[in-house]
Amino acid sequence: MTPCFQKMAAPGRKVLIVYAHQEPKSLNGSLKNIAVEELSKQSCSVTVSDLYSMEFEPRATRNDIVGCLHNSEQFNYGAESWEAYRKGCLTKDIVEEQKKVHEADLVIFQFPLYWFSVPAIMKGWMDRVLTQGFAHNFPDCFDAGLLNNKLALLSFTTGGNEEMYSKGGISGDIHYVLWPMQHGILHFCGFKVLAPQICFSPEYETEEKRKEMLTTWAQRLKTIWEEKPINCTPEWYFRILIFPLHQQELRYLASCRTEPSPAKTPLESLIELHFELQKVTLKHPIPVINYSLSNIVSVLLMVIPECIIVWKKYVRVCYFTNTSQ
Amino acid sequence: MTPCFQKMAAPGRKVLIVYAHQEPKSLNGSLKNIAVEELSKQSCSVTVSDLYSMEFEPRATRNDIVGCLHNSEQFNYGAESWEAYRKGCLTKDIVEEQKKVHEADLVIFQFPLYWFSVPAIMKGWMDRVLTQGFAHNFPDCFDAGLLNNKLALLSFTTGGNEEMYSKGGISGDIHYVLWPMQHGILHFCGFKVLAPQICFSPEYETEEKRKEMLTTWAQRLKTIWEEKPINCTPEWYFRILIFPLHQQELRYLASCRTEPSPAKTPLESLIELHFELQKVTLKHPIPVINYSLSNIVSVLLMVIPECIIVWKKYVRVCYFTNTSQ
Repeated sequence: MTPCFQKMAAPGRKVLIVYAHQEPKSLNGSLKNIAVEELSKQSCSVTVSDLYSMEFEPRATRNDIVGCLHNSEQFNYGAESWEAYRKGCLTKDIVEEQKKVHEADLVIFQFPLYWFSVPAIMKGWMDRVLTQGFAHNFPDCFDAGLLNNKLALLSFTTGGNEEMYSKGGISGDIHYVLWPMQHGILHFCGFKVLAPQICFSPEYETEEKRKEMLTTWAQRLKTIWEEKPINCTPEWYFRILIFPLHQQELRYLASCRTEPSPAKTPLESLIELHFELQKVTLKHPIPVINYSLSNIVSVLLMVIPECIIVWKKYVRVCYFTNTSQ
Repeated sequence: MTPCFQKMAAPGRKVLIVYAHQEPKSLNGSLKNIAVEELSKQSCSVTVSDLYSMEFEPRATRNDIVGCLHNSEQFNYGAESWEAYRKGCLTKDIVEEQKKVHEADLVIFQFPLYWFSVPAIMKGWMDRVLTQGFAHNFPDCFDAGLLNNKLALLSFTTGGNEEMYSKGGISGDIHYVLWPMQHGILHFCGFKVLAPQICFSPEYETEEKRKEMLTTWAQRLKTIWEEKPINCTPEWYFRILIFPLHQQELRYLASCRTEPSPAKTPLESLIELHFELQKVTLKHPIPVINYSLSNIVSVLLMVIPECIIVWKKYVRVCYFTNTSQ
């Protein structure tokens, strides 16, 4: 945690709200208005990019580059927009949005969840505004991303209720929905991500409950500058899990696994094996193990009778069969 | 598996390719061309929606409804487009795309991955074409979705390489990227999903390797009608995981947990507790347990010395502390 995010004073701070709803009287409209009101009270300077009112262009095309292309023989949007950013040849609407982002201390995205993601008009804002050279420039990405002096926050409404977006719910864990947006976009550009503000299923709630959603948001904004960024890439996204394998996967593994090289560490051998498995599991996704190996082996030996242990000189790997399949 | 997906004959089958790339000479363009060529050879009827050439409108607005609105006082895109679908008042470009989808046995989406998702122009196709009433109509969603007599396949190129999209890689497991698209969109509408066709990082590959990507795709298409749909919602997306809890979460749990009601089954009590925990973990995501309880309890008792067991009359729940935090 860098000290600048601790006890950040509100007055003078700049906030950009990127807002995507067609209807000013919607809950999204009210959430946006309340943010403008509350943050202005704190003497923050607030700018709103009201994408539908602006008729913001979502399509990433050749029109985004003013003048000649770097390679007009074969158009490559990523390469051309990067080059155009460096030369100052990006089209006016992109430049204006980049200027707003550049000046902002905090960017709030306010939108209704469409198909487990942002609406196309907001996706277009991300596709076109977060240009290489401006927002990221490999290896300047993730924690080293070019916008890493800024905070970002996703504030959205959903159609489904909270239970549907729980781990066991039909829509799956809401963290899967957050992943591409929070890690893939915001974190990639360096943004420090604040906890998402989610209003579950307002259309099926009472008027009273909807009002409560607004006051909760207003209340939160009063101390928003004291909030610490969340870890939007907690370990569980990366940890390899233990699951039963199908008989066919076991047969595949038995047929393709080679002796680990003595030149490799156990971890290297394990990673290699993991990639082999990924080729199978991409079609029939069943995650496999890594974990603390000695720990896992002992646990499995103790409790899983169907456990199959493959013991090698340099790497100990175990799979256990699912007898029900 | 319904018998119709086994040994589906190619001749006469209809395929829609929804294609989003600005440059015909791109790898995406070639992948699209090869699909048209190969499927036509099989006497399939192939239609391409070339979104950039069509200048397809991605913005979901009031213009999508021809004539009067159902509620002009407060515009609600979802409700209005549903109503317009029923009355035949959707705008022409949406109707045309819906007709193509309606006729198709297989829909292939061909695109470069932009920001862990489809480009905005394709997101707009999904936002606008997959209307309630046409593609889904609660409870007619997921397996009962209105397009459940069709196959769908995501074919895309990435910037990052395969290792970056592995479980331990910096971009995280590719299955997280696939989740909103395959489960949240395609499966929601009922599509049977075929394995994705992913060309990792073609820009950083040799010309030879790029050619190989094309031939692999052509080869796969030869037997595409014999493929069985994948399970795009395997159990691991839903299973609640065991992870160490922070001391603060344990304290929170200790303070808020109430006695389970005798009227509830152990599973109901556990689910209730899980929701309590989700409120905490949404800000600091640390998944918690469910699993086969008796199994877990015995494993934990055996191997984790720091294990804290909360034993109740109707539900046995255990958390274990992470001593390193």
